[in-house]
Formats: sequence, C-alpha cells, structure tokens
Amino acid sequence: MKIAFIGLGNMGGGMAANLLKAGHTVNAFDLSAEALARAKDNGCATFTSVREAVAGVDAVVSMLPNGKIVDSVYVGDVIGYASKGAILLDCSTIDVDTARKVTAEATVAGYEMVDAPVSGGIGAANGGTLTFMVGGSESAFARAEPILAAMGKAVIHAGGSGAGQAAKICNNMLLGASMIATCEAFTLAEKLGLDLQTFYDISSKSSGQNWSMTSYCPVPGVGPQSPADNDYQGGFATALMLKDLKLAMEAARSVDANVPMGEKAAALYEAFNEAGQGGFDFSAIIKTL
Amino acid sequence: MKIAFIGLGNMGGGMAANLLKAGHTVNAFDLSAEALARAKDNGCATFTSVREAVAGVDAVVSMLPNGKIVDSVYVGDVIGYASKGAILLDCSTIDVDTARKVTAEATVAGYEMVDAPVSGGIGAANGGTLTFMVGGSESAFARAEPILAAMGKAVIHAGGSGAGQAAKICNNMLLGASMIATCEAFTLAEKLGLDLQTFYDISSKSSGQNWSMTSYCPVPGVGPQSPADNDYQGGFATALMLKDLKLAMEAARSVDANVPMGEKAAALYEAFNEAGQGGFDFSAIIKTL
Repeated sequence: MKIAFIGLGNMGGGMAANLLKAGHTVNAFDLSAEALARAKDNGCATFTSVREAVAGVDAVVSMLPNGKIVDSVYVGDVIGYASKGAILLDCSTIDVDTARKVTAEATVAGYEMVDAPVSGGIGAANGGTLTFMVGGSESAFARAEPILAAMGKAVIHAGGSGAGQAAKICNNMLLGASMIATCEAFTLAEKLGLDLQTFYDISSKSSGQNWSMTSYCPVPGVGPQSPADNDYQGGFATALMLKDLKLAMEAARSVDANVPMGEKAAALYEAFNEAGQGGFDFSAIIKTL
Repeated sequence: MKIAFIGLGNMGGGMAANLLKAGHTVNAFDLSAEALARAKDNGCATFTSVREAVAGVDAVVSMLPNGKIVDSVYVGDVIGYASKGAILLDCSTIDVDTARKVTAEATVAGYEMVDAPVSGGIGAANGGTLTFMVGGSESAFARAEPILAAMGKAVIHAGGSGAGQAAKICNNMLLGASMIATCEAFTLAEKLGLDLQTFYDISSKSSGQNWSMTSYCPVPGVGPQSPADNDYQGGFATALMLKDLKLAMEAARSVDANVPMGEKAAALYEAFNEAGQGGFDFSAIIKTL
C-alpha cells in the first residue's frame, strides 16, 4: 500500500519505519526538517506539504501532539485532498470530542476513519510492539487493523468513533491513580519499619496487587526490572502521564463524571511536572512522598 | 494444645471452631452470652472471665474490635495471668503503636507475642482459609505459625513486632484507593460510551490492571463473580474498610508519611459510611460516582 505518514517525531519516526519494513511505500510529512531528513534516510518519500503527501495514497496515518493540530491537519489538508477511498488512521492521543468531530467530518466527506491511540513508548514504537486501542465502525476497523498490525503487537477494537481515545484515557487515569497509591503504600510501609521486599512479597499476592506494583514497581531493586532501577529514566514520562490525566479530566467534565481519585492524581502529577520533573518516568513521583 | 480464645464474634467464632477441628482444646471467653453459648455448642469450654480462661493454657488467641480493648484485655487480664511460657497471638486489626506497646509489656513479663491480623472475611474465618500477616520475633513466629495454620491457608512473617499490622494497613490503604480508582474508570468509560465488558477486556490486560478489577470487579456481570453480582452484599464491608483506612491515616500521621490518595480514599469511604452504606461491600462505592 501507499501510505501517507503525518508527524514523524519520537513515536511516529519508528512507526513509519515499521510500515516500510512491512513493504509499504510511505509518503512522509513533518514540520521539522530534521525529522523529515531522518524519514528520508529510512526510505520514505518526503513532502513539504500535507496535501502533497496525501495525494493518491491508500491510507493516511498521523501521530500528532494534540487535538487542535489533528483537527487542523485533517480538516485543512487531508479531508478532500487524500484520495477518495483512503482509510484515515489517527494514532495521536487527543480528546474524545475532537476525535469524534474529525471522524464525523471525514465520514461526511466519504472517508472511513479510526482513532487509534497507542499504549507503549518510544521503544515499542521502534520495535513494532505498540498496543493500539481503536475506535471506529466495524468496516473501518477491518481496514485499519492490518496497517496497525505492522506497527504493533496488539490491535484492539474498543468500540465506535472516539472509543479508542476513551479506553486509553480511562485506563491511564486508573494507572496514574494506582501508581501514586502504590508509591504511598511502599512509603508508609518503609516508615513503619517494614522491609520493602517483604511488603512486595505480601501485597503483590494480596488485594493490593496492581500493574504499577507487579509490572512496573516504583521501588528500585524490588519487583521486575523497571525505570526505578535506572534512576527513573526512560519509561513513560511524567509529562505524558499528565497530558493523559488532563484529557481524562476534560472528558469527565464533558460527561459530568465524578472522578475524585483521578482528579487528585492529576493535581499531584501537575505539581510534580511543575517542579521540573516532567522528563522523569511517572513512577518517580515516589520521591515526593 | 490448650488454647484460650478471647473474642468469639463473627470472625472469632469460626476461628475457634477451626482450632477445635485441629484437635486443640479451646477455653472461650466473650462478653456476649450469646457468643459464648455458640462457642459451648461448638465444643469450647466457656469461662466468665479472661483470667480464668487463660489460666494454664499453652497459647492465647484474641480477635477483638480495637486497640483500646486489646490493650485492656492483655495488660489487665492476660499478662501475669496466663501460664508463664504461653505464646500470645493477637489476631485483631489494631493500630501499630498499640500492637507494639502490648507486645513490649508481654515481653517484659516473659511472654512471646505476635500481632497477626487477618485478610479474608467471615467465610474465610469459617472455612479456615484466612491469610495471617504476622509481626514478631523469629522465635515467636515459629511457635505461632502452626496455631495460625489451623485457621488459615497462609501465614506470612511480615517482620518484627507491629509488622503484621503495618503490612495489613498498607495493603488495605492501597486496596481502598485502587477500588475507588477502578470504580471511577468504569464510570467514566460508561459515560464516554464504552461497553464495560470491552473496557474490562482492554484494561485488565493493560497497565490499569489491579486486584479490585480482575479479582473483585465492582461492575455486576463483568469479570469474576464478586459482591457486585449479589447487590453488593457480603464481601468486605465498607465500615471495615473505613476502619483500616483510619488506622492507616493514624499510622501515617505518627511517622509523618505523605499519603494523599489514601487520605482521599478515607474521606470518600467515610462519606459513604455516614450515608448509611457501611454494611454494603466496599465496592458498592461505585454507586456514588
């Protein structure tokens, strides 16, 4: 297939490379000349406008920083410019409302579109092991799936338009709250004189068990290898967790959902980010407790 | 062995019965004549004072409502009255400081003592499938273990005196916070139009996974069988979760630990309890979101 790829940053660069590896032709566009040069080195055809990049393609894949940019790129330069019949796949993490609005406009113009945000970081983008949570019709999902499968290890149909974004932010809201609660439990345990490995051994097999503890333990030297064992470098940056929590809070307000623990987690990650710690893995918040 | 059992309520009654089944002789004391009559029917010898019940026994096991009562029973009527050489096992869930104080007084008087709070409810007490988290010396643990094993499926040595209580409240603080965060994630997912089973399928295999979701799902009809499937009856009562959260907050204050998510969970369970919902399973808090 001939695929246009819009946004070849830290994540998009690796994803586009995996589309090339799978035998697709990739038309690349990015505002950054550097990103575009890297894409060219990897074997992409490069373009200086979105409209040129999407002309004549079978699919458009985008990986962009926020909903405003996604809206402006699709409404301004993709819809009406990509070939009729092209399938549109936005892999950005953005707000549910914008995802639905853009898909609705694409649908009116005769395109099928999915929202397909990812779980997994730069390593997973480069390695082709991302998980995609996909929102869209059965028909759009069926067309999107093989394209996404070339960039990931799991492609999950979460529901209709916007459901990919909704699933991601609900999951990550739970993740953010669970991580801080896990950090607190270890901190309190230590101050009460418990050995942290012993507390892990007990709680990881008990009702406190959660992914933040047993797959991503925030305590160095306890549990499986995690960013905590590498001075909280790499992993899932605090700034990105905060972005997801803000999207979750925005979504909760829009549907009048009561999310007190999510709100508390968002406030705590905002303070941690504002203290200049946004580049550290989100488990580093244990250092503030 | 001849064992004195102090406090034969909903939990203690079943625990004492399992000691009898294991072949021990049980001297029972409870302030309630009804509880004592049930103990007699089960085969316990019954006594009208703690001092008489503990005279000449090899071990004393207690299951009492709070730290003040544990202190007064042990300091007033067990220490100095139970045979020298008896091992003392307090299975109540109480504050860490009182647990350590009572053990210290018992030690000075020449007894070995453990704090051994349980995980598991009335069903586990009756079925002999409790988990004991034990604080005490190696020697005290070695003596306590076979007695506790007659009442449970797991006996874990958490550390020195008070470590059983510390492990339990740290775990349950994490559990309370995780349960509410899980309830919020399902509630937000539903309001955003996600199918709840689909959200479960995604999040239970992703970074939002936690025991409250995958072993005790608060949504009826989703995940394994849980109190949610029985109108939130049975299970772990909100009032008991609140008791543990209050103990955790007290412990956090005493060691100057920062537990913002735990605090939020305690406040939410307190409000739920004050709204008259204390008898419902703690997952019922999903109804308030």
